[in-house]
Amino acid sequence: MDMETVNSMDFGEFVEVFGNVIERCPLVAAAVWSQRPFSDPADLERHFFSFIDTLPQSGQEGVLRCHPDLAGRELQRGALTAESQREQSGAGLTSLGAAERLRLTELNAQYRARFGFPFVLAARLSDRAAVPRELARRLLCPPELELRTALEEVKKIGHLRLADLLGADPAKL
Amino acid sequence: MDMETVNSMDFGEFVEVFGNVIERCPLVAAAVWSQRPFSDPADLERHFFSFIDTLPQSGQEGVLRCHPDLAGRELQRGALTAESQREQSGAGLTSLGAAERLRLTELNAQYRARFGFPFVLAARLSDRAAVPRELARRLLCPPELELRTALEEVKKIGHLRLADLLGADPAKL
Repeated sequence: MDMETVNSMDFGEFVEVFGNVIERCPLVAAAVWSQRPFSDPADLERHFFSFIDTLPQSGQEGVLRCHPDLAGRELQRGALTAESQREQSGAGLTSLGAAERLRLTELNAQYRARFGFPFVLAARLSDRAAVPRELARRLLCPPELELRTALEEVKKIGHLRLADLLGADPAKL
Repeated sequence: MDMETVNSMDFGEFVEVFGNVIERCPLVAAAVWSQRPFSDPADLERHFFSFIDTLPQSGQEGVLRCHPDLAGRELQRGALTAESQREQSGAGLTSLGAAERLRLTELNAQYRARFGFPFVLAARLSDRAAVPRELARRLLCPPELELRTALEEVKKIGHLRLADLLGADPAKL
């Protein structure tokens, strides 16, 4: 998809296409549309990320809270977004054994209790062995640092989703 | 639902219950959870509205763009949220004649083209005769004024939805 196509979209089309670049936060894409025209994919991406950066802390936490747990209840129930389903599946999180799943469930619960938002990780850059390790590590981080780390993961996820939608190489976006 | 129940919800429960107080913007409820405990329903509502008030203009436009047209394509397709379906149906917008529907479709399109967001109106406080009249009137307003008017309608909708969820009298919330 070229930028001319993107820039010619009305807001309904734009939100339909880019509404889940930030998981379950179509509000972000809907806001970004105000900034068109976009000069190139990197410019489009910058507007997504800078919208998140300028939210108050409660809003940034809100963005995180719209994300599902990894290998959590929504995966079990088949209630993930298509993008999240693909990402978690690609990382092998849909085929965990009972013990691995239980371990992740426990770590996810501890993480949510400690930080007040779910553990967010760009699953496409990880795998089933690394996820619990990284979760256990981040569980020990100070809350202010962890909020920043989690938002960086939101951006990595958004970067890969945007690259997919634009048919672009993520390394060149 | 009493405030003790509300204040004891984890963020997953809170977003599940209050996620559509602001149409298709669960991010707002997810952000508001950061402000708990809430002293009473009015306090809870204040946090929803002040989150919207502190968004940059693009974000406020984004909130509006998450709303469906009245008697529009999403109603035809059965793709409205449950709340919106009830509200539009209650105002008689699901049983328009062909001419009335065409007239609204045209006015909605003009409105979207002029302001860059859809016409938002608290349908429960209106009816099928008043909607096109109000739409035609607001179509002539200056954009800055119209943005404020539309956000006030978002709040009226949110007020009624919150009252429903809390089992409260809207006049006393």
